[in-house]
Amino acid sequence: MLLEQIEKANDIKQIDKADYDALAEEIRQFLIEKISVTGGHLGSNLGAVELTMALHLSLDFPQDKLIWDVGHQSYTHKLLTGRRDGFENLRKFHGMSGFPKRGESDCDCFNTGHSSTSISAGLGLVKARDIKGEKNTIVSVIGDGSLTGGMAYEALNNASQLETNFIVVLNDNKMSISENVGGISSYLNKVRTADSYLDLKEGVYNALRGMKGDNAIAKIRRLKSSVKQLFIPGMFFEDMGITYLGPVNGHDINALLRVFKEAKKVKGAVLVHVITEKGKGYGPAERHPARFHGAEPFEIETGLPKTPRTTSNYTDIFSTVMCKLGQREEKVVAITAAMPDGTGLKRFRNMYPERFFDVGIAEEHAVTFAAGLAAGGLKPVVAVYSSFLQRAYDQILHDVCIQNLPVVFAIDRAGLVGSDGETHQGIFDLSYLSGIPNMHVMAPKNKWELSDMLKFAVAFDAPIAIRYPRGEAYAGLKEFRAPIELGKAEWIYKEKEILLLAVGSMVKTAEKVRERLKEDGYACSLVNARFVKPVDGELLKEAGDDHSLFVTLEENVASGGFGESVRRAMEEQELKKEVLSVTLPDAYVEHGNVELLKKELGIDEESIYRRIRTALEKEPE
Amino acid sequence: MLLEQIEKANDIKQIDKADYDALAEEIRQFLIEKISVTGGHLGSNLGAVELTMALHLSLDFPQDKLIWDVGHQSYTHKLLTGRRDGFENLRKFHGMSGFPKRGESDCDCFNTGHSSTSISAGLGLVKARDIKGEKNTIVSVIGDGSLTGGMAYEALNNASQLETNFIVVLNDNKMSISENVGGISSYLNKVRTADSYLDLKEGVYNALRGMKGDNAIAKIRRLKSSVKQLFIPGMFFEDMGITYLGPVNGHDINALLRVFKEAKKVKGAVLVHVITEKGKGYGPAERHPARFHGAEPFEIETGLPKTPRTTSNYTDIFSTVMCKLGQREEKVVAITAAMPDGTGLKRFRNMYPERFFDVGIAEEHAVTFAAGLAAGGLKPVVAVYSSFLQRAYDQILHDVCIQNLPVVFAIDRAGLVGSDGETHQGIFDLSYLSGIPNMHVMAPKNKWELSDMLKFAVAFDAPIAIRYPRGEAYAGLKEFRAPIELGKAEWIYKEKEILLLAVGSMVKTAEKVRERLKEDGYACSLVNARFVKPVDGELLKEAGDDHSLFVTLEENVASGGFGESVRRAMEEQELKKEVLSVTLPDAYVEHGNVELLKKELGIDEESIYRRIRTALEKEPE
Repeated sequence: MLLEQIEKANDIKQIDKADYDALAEEIRQFLIEKISVTGGHLGSNLGAVELTMALHLSLDFPQDKLIWDVGHQSYTHKLLTGRRDGFENLRKFHGMSGFPKRGESDCDCFNTGHSSTSISAGLGLVKARDIKGEKNTIVSVIGDGSLTGGMAYEALNNASQLETNFIVVLNDNKMSISENVGGISSYLNKVRTADSYLDLKEGVYNALRGMKGDNAIAKIRRLKSSVKQLFIPGMFFEDMGITYLGPVNGHDINALLRVFKEAKKVKGAVLVHVITEKGKGYGPAERHPARFHGAEPFEIETGLPKTPRTTSNYTDIFSTVMCKLGQREEKVVAITAAMPDGTGLKRFRNMYPERFFDVGIAEEHAVTFAAGLAAGGLKPVVAVYSSFLQRAYDQILHDVCIQNLPVVFAIDRAGLVGSDGETHQGIFDLSYLSGIPNMHVMAPKNKWELSDMLKFAVAFDAPIAIRYPRGEAYAGLKEFRAPIELGKAEWIYKEKEILLLAVGSMVKTAEKVRERLKEDGYACSLVNARFVKPVDGELLKEAGDDHSLFVTLEENVASGGFGESVRRAMEEQELKKEVLSVTLPDAYVEHGNVELLKKELGIDEESIYRRIRTALEKEPE
Repeated sequence: MLLEQIEKANDIKQIDKADYDALAEEIRQFLIEKISVTGGHLGSNLGAVELTMALHLSLDFPQDKLIWDVGHQSYTHKLLTGRRDGFENLRKFHGMSGFPKRGESDCDCFNTGHSSTSISAGLGLVKARDIKGEKNTIVSVIGDGSLTGGMAYEALNNASQLETNFIVVLNDNKMSISENVGGISSYLNKVRTADSYLDLKEGVYNALRGMKGDNAIAKIRRLKSSVKQLFIPGMFFEDMGITYLGPVNGHDINALLRVFKEAKKVKGAVLVHVITEKGKGYGPAERHPARFHGAEPFEIETGLPKTPRTTSNYTDIFSTVMCKLGQREEKVVAITAAMPDGTGLKRFRNMYPERFFDVGIAEEHAVTFAAGLAAGGLKPVVAVYSSFLQRAYDQILHDVCIQNLPVVFAIDRAGLVGSDGETHQGIFDLSYLSGIPNMHVMAPKNKWELSDMLKFAVAFDAPIAIRYPRGEAYAGLKEFRAPIELGKAEWIYKEKEILLLAVGSMVKTAEKVRERLKEDGYACSLVNARFVKPVDGELLKEAGDDHSLFVTLEENVASGGFGESVRRAMEEQELKKEVLSVTLPDAYVEHGNVELLKKELGIDEESIYRRIRTALEKEPE
């Protein structure tokens, strides 16, 4: 086993050149085997095996710096830096992260998770290097998808001013750019890296030669297209002042080694265009790239999930209701930022393609574009993950809410998301949305309520958000389905003494906590908050008469969350009661099974029950 | 007076063609006169007079839609749509806004204020038009500066897919792009708009002809540059699939009318490149574009401010201290997003050019770039306005704070800013920053404290923000200058009964409120909070012993703000006290004099005093 010879960073340099392909094959088998057990990002990692090997052969760790955009393609990098054993507990609680982590290895120089950050971060490291007079090499690896994010462009725009080396690797696995580049581009590569423009003359003349003769218009049209081919995508980058090298076959280690050698010589920013195939080497992943992007544990032979999903999740409900709403209401349009599958909008896209917009990884544009659609009289629904919507905070505040435009935000993956960890936990949305004037925020207790809330939101004439968690949709409490009313919470059980005020996913937990308290002889009411903004002040006042302890429950940080809003609403009502707030702590939450995390963070049934009992025991009798 | 003939939208079409230049001259005189009295954005408006006239001659209002990026250049648009009288009270409380406002006119179709939003919004209006089967024309006007913002690129990237008309006007007043475009570009303009490529042949051959002969390398290098000139900036946009027309002289109404006529024929997105001169027609504004960007009232003859500033503001203090820190500590670097003047970093730039970075209007990149600099071992200070930092919420949360990187945020224009209104009020930062783990937030009570805090922040090894307001720096309380300690508030007056806990600018107000309460016979303590995050829990506990009413004071919305944090800290300390929170309401705040706004919003001395008296009277004796 070649892989066993690699115990730490730079060990790969001891491998015989002739064995590179065999090593790549071993890495692929290793990744398929391990991920089939633990789950994880497979396709992107299989696509980046040779690219990572070539980078490790070209760089010296840890002094050289490698930044992985998004970071889910860093598994081979982890393998080559002494973290082989980590794959046993990949993405498990206290196990190895699925993303680069500075705390995990000195070869991880910058944490990533969200898209399009790597060039900004790399440029920062480059400037720090230059100011400190150091000499190392800095490489940012960015996918073609991430390049649709505006901040990547902002960073390229700045990198163009550089007079020292900075390598940006464009890991292009979509073929969307490569179709436009032919032989001339690789020829340009050869010419430029040799720092000679001599042969360019011939190249340009060859391209133009066909222009002579008759039928000039057609020929010049063709010229226009061939001039474009000559320069796309290189010219686009060169226009910004960035040297372009490529395209290079991302599965040809020797070609990659050659191009990186040239790239290191460039005095300035250089973009190396590498063509890779997502899922490379594993048939099912090559055929179903979306399914194997972030895969659950699967059977290697068939590629099918080990435990097929039998229940429906909130994304499915959203998907179904959106299609119905699309049929019922012609003004309903849907927007996603590169996630038609993840958000469940694929079916809407198939049914109403002219009313569906995938804007790419561009959350900022997505939200202001939605504001424009709303200003134009339509009813846009922006479906996005909670942690990614953070990107569009200013656009929600400045473009949607100042104008009080009726944009619906369908916020998936709100609350703890599990194995993706810190960067993906959707635990801030209640805070950042509640602070925005004119915004309304809801969370459903179960699957039927998501449907009702979505219908309510689409009929509502102001900005409104519905946040719901990843995973199985709760199918309990079906009998509680009073119509949604603006700012009105829902009584589930109306007793006295203790009042549990639960948001969304916490209603299910609160039900169980209530049963425990009832067993202990306490009376306990349960309210489904429904609205986090505005809080139902009237219900609080009503409850004040016969409840002595209010308990708020939410899957969100405390600052700016539901608990604080309840306390403020109580102040407005001049209601003086003991309030116990169950929230997430003021900390980032690592990866791991959601149920485990909830225990660890004290928002599981047992922890909440104990906190309430402790609070009750302190109460004056 | 021609201007008097224009009473409402489309009236300009009744003006004789021969009078266009005279009308432009009248508009310029009108703007100079009015703005010299009220203050306002002068330079950008003088530059856009003919452009706006030509757009109004080419469009039909209100059915056609015009979106002004940022929006401070919309004065002529306001003049031409029946709002001449509004200039008497421009940017005054309840007067006309300095930005487009849907509520102000049906010719304002989308509110703006922040940069780079107009193409996204325009594209939304285009899609709404097409879905509804309408036929109007939609134009987004964006400056060359705004084009450095990533979301403009995200939007262009999407607009390129359009098959219906959408006009983007690039209002280029910097000459940074136009230098690269020569005769071939305007020639390309003529060719393309006529939908004929015939003459292109000759053009390209002319450009290439010089290549023949000796000294090939030099000539081909020149070719490379001339090929670039041929296609920059047009090719850059055409690469994305956007038709490029221009450049056009933005002060030649007839040329503008011709190009808009052609632009309206394009089936798809078309970028019209218009060259304008900022401050055009007013000498002082042409010579000092930065000073006349947003001008205070000035003497028309000299261009000098009517009331020269004699006191120093917080920006000045920041500027001075940064220069000292730059000298003392080589690791200190400074970052601005296109505002070296506004943030006060100009002096730092002049003294330490290699450690100063202006990234353009690109707040997202600015923050992640700073994270990279910090990861590389430097001490970056990001100077930015509160409302613009909203753009980088995710980058603060995801790139700086998850990694706990020592980035300093110097947040200017925090709190009410006055005449710029809704889009510029810095009233959310305490909320959006306090919810982020690992973040620390400070606010100085006076000028000396800003200096002390900045020094503390630069020596601190984690993310930290200092927020300070626009305008004169408070020079009182000079004698209170205890060293800054992490998470420690400062006792100013230690008495009993009432405890005033004030943040930043509210310390000065609290002093006056305290005097009133003292006059009434109450004992009253005053604490300068210093840290909004973390809150000084120990001081709260200590104060709990002999204070019955806690009053928090902040220039921020309630949700997620200081008041809520104090209440949460008190819960943690099991401290049960009456708390009165003085905050801004859950609403956007319009333009107007800051002192007036404070009265209106109930955060002035009188309102706060009355609220406290009312609360005290309710207290059980």
